[in-house]
Amino acid sequence: MTQMAVASQELSTEQGTIAVGGEPYLLTPGPLTTALSTKAAMLRDWGSWDGDFKAVTAEIRSRLVEMCGGEDAYDCVLMQGSGTFSVEAALASFIPQDGKALILMNGAYGQRSAKILDYIGRAYVTLDKGDYLPPMPEEVDAILSADGDITHVVVVHCETSSGILNPLKGISDVTQKHGRKLIVDSMSAFGAVPVDVADVPFEALVSSANKCIEGVPGFGFVLARKSALEAARGNSHSLSLDVHDQWVYMNKTGQWRFTPPTHTVVAFREALHLHEKEGGVTGRLARYTRNRDVLVSGMRALGFETLLEDEWLSPIITTFFSPADPAFDFGRFYDEIKARGFVIYPGKLTEAESFRIGCIGALDHRVMEGVLKAVKESCEAIGVTNFGPPDGVK
Amino acid sequence: MTQMAVASQELSTEQGTIAVGGEPYLLTPGPLTTALSTKAAMLRDWGSWDGDFKAVTAEIRSRLVEMCGGEDAYDCVLMQGSGTFSVEAALASFIPQDGKALILMNGAYGQRSAKILDYIGRAYVTLDKGDYLPPMPEEVDAILSADGDITHVVVVHCETSSGILNPLKGISDVTQKHGRKLIVDSMSAFGAVPVDVADVPFEALVSSANKCIEGVPGFGFVLARKSALEAARGNSHSLSLDVHDQWVYMNKTGQWRFTPPTHTVVAFREALHLHEKEGGVTGRLARYTRNRDVLVSGMRALGFETLLEDEWLSPIITTFFSPADPAFDFGRFYDEIKARGFVIYPGKLTEAESFRIGCIGALDHRVMEGVLKAVKESCEAIGVTNFGPPDGVK
Ligand SMILES: Cc1ncc(COP(=O)(O)O)c(C=O)c1O
Ligand SMILES: Cc1ncc(COP(=O)(O)O)c(C=O)c1O
Repeated sequence: MTQMAVASQELSTEQGTIAVGGEPYLLTPGPLTTALSTKAAMLRDWGSWDGDFKAVTAEIRSRLVEMCGGEDAYDCVLMQGSGTFSVEAALASFIPQDGKALILMNGAYGQRSAKILDYIGRAYVTLDKGDYLPPMPEEVDAILSADGDITHVVVVHCETSSGILNPLKGISDVTQKHGRKLIVDSMSAFGAVPVDVADVPFEALVSSANKCIEGVPGFGFVLARKSALEAARGNSHSLSLDVHDQWVYMNKTGQWRFTPPTHTVVAFREALHLHEKEGGVTGRLARYTRNRDVLVSGMRALGFETLLEDEWLSPIITTFFSPADPAFDFGRFYDEIKARGFVIYPGKLTEAESFRIGCIGALDHRVMEGVLKAVKESCEAIGVTNFGPPDGVK
Repeated sequence: MTQMAVASQELSTEQGTIAVGGEPYLLTPGPLTTALSTKAAMLRDWGSWDGDFKAVTAEIRSRLVEMCGGEDAYDCVLMQGSGTFSVEAALASFIPQDGKALILMNGAYGQRSAKILDYIGRAYVTLDKGDYLPPMPEEVDAILSADGDITHVVVVHCETSSGILNPLKGISDVTQKHGRKLIVDSMSAFGAVPVDVADVPFEALVSSANKCIEGVPGFGFVLARKSALEAARGNSHSLSLDVHDQWVYMNKTGQWRFTPPTHTVVAFREALHLHEKEGGVTGRLARYTRNRDVLVSGMRALGFETLLEDEWLSPIITTFFSPADPAFDFGRFYDEIKARGFVIYPGKLTEAESFRIGCIGALDHRVMEGVLKAVKESCEAIGVTNFGPPDGVK
């Protein structure tokens, strides 16, 4: 009936044969589809105290600092847990107890930063642009002019819940102009969307292993000014999430304070090597952009509409309105597409039904062509004939 | 010259050949040596939102509840991060802001719980037995009799820093007698040392993926009374580490709140299957006990002495005094043993030089025979002829 997009592979070992692959492509930006060699790096056990593993940790840290042009003034701290753990760790460690944050919100991840500040008891105000509008530099400028107590601006780089790429450079410029500090949640963008500290001199930036660098999930990382890392001493509400403490210990011993996810860490090193081979951030951005362009133009040709205007479309993930056709049911659509070898995400909009398709991971434009075919066939299989959105949702 | 204990293996794929293994055995209790099939389970990418992955999460949770006989009254919450993250999550979630803990300390991990309570601002007192003496039930009894404000007793099951197996049952009995609640850090023991809630009706118990269940590191788990999970609402200082919130969400959606370490989770399911095949906790305890017995009697035959009396030796890890021989140098000894295929741990004693050898992981008594041979050869290689400890350290 349907054909899976991913070919099965077999690994033969002395102990027998292991089936590899055969799973669907993940068009879900984290976890995502990773290269076989990234996963295969996990076929070894590493002692976390051992010199060999310390060398892996050191290599990762310095490669990440290089990736943002951080050289002397910045350092990198790796942190166990999911990306949210690193966001919480950074907010608590860099915003002092008497600080005040301005959170720029336009989706789930900005909201999450606000929730974290509620937990840890830091003062904040928000600029809430709803589901899909960008926070504009002029707006930030006005808020900072009016409120001299604000010490930190918190911005989500690519707000993955809609796929919008927020205007980071402009926001950074006004934040600098007012002498405030910038904390960037670049979870889903770092490694593919360029961020250089010469351009965007952030105080701290957070991302994770399983996004644009295409590792497997299990840890996050914080890139930060060394002066901020120094000053973070005593700020954290949590031993586990104390960025200062982790930093001091890593620099002193080369080790993580607590057991690192060794296999994930070694897989990430391999992912970094593949990233470099592809031409670094530039090469990765080119591939993801092509993925996005093939996807968006193909979907539009079918009759689908994107949530966002072209100007705000990220090369990370795109939100499409669900077809108005009453035969459309997301659960059935999901299952049909999955049977054809692709896993997609539901939408996160409060107002209109939608779904999301990611462009990141170990996949290229040919895979995106397969996605388009699967979308069409899946809609047909559930009896959808008109792919356009309801009137007036845009 | 020397021969590695672990044979190299190769996995042939269509893309080429992947070398597997060839690394030393990890006699370090977490991360530890895992089975090839456990690691091979990571050769696939999983969508965290997908039904297939939810089924893995559900299976793990129910197997862990069964393992402690928890059936109806208990539930299991999985938590991203290392074991310490789960300990912090449990302490913050189960000890209310106006609670007071008694921490039983006899090593680094008891101390760490105290440090966590300092961070999160919970009142506590300690019973500190130093480096290697067990906290005795009578002592706990006396403290609880004298201090009616203590709401929770925190005990480390196997204090991995010395290898001592603390008298959990006796401590549990007096805690129950006084109507207080027990929180157990069973990080390095659960899965190999039996804990049944019928015997030890704990409030919460914490362990992690990469100890006796022999998974790879990346997450921990909290087994807790459902009533405690209910009551934990609003207690946590941290969004990421909120056990109540994670529990409610997992039960409602079958998903983790934030991206799970998918590969690690799937590896853990395979590890649980191997655990069951070996005869569950009983089978695992038998293998580890034999490992320990072969190790300890062999080391004693060489002239080494254990830190602990036999009564307190765990089947998890054993501390040996370093030889008094002035030629002994831990760094050189470590390198020589590693060249022979084994990674060991330094000691953690404040008073005497020592080292530790673990008995857990995917290894058996034949591997332990290899360890003994490597210890002897390594000592000889660095010019140590007398393996006994300095006079008077015991
Ligand atoms: C922008 C952004 N921030 C934070 C997160 C949270 O990361 P995690 O799910 O790893 O906790 C995500 C996850 O997709 C994200 O896209
Ligand atoms: C008894 C005990 N508690 C806590 C921990 C901390 O676990 P992790 O290193 O995974 O944070 C360990 C680690 O070995 C342990 O043995």
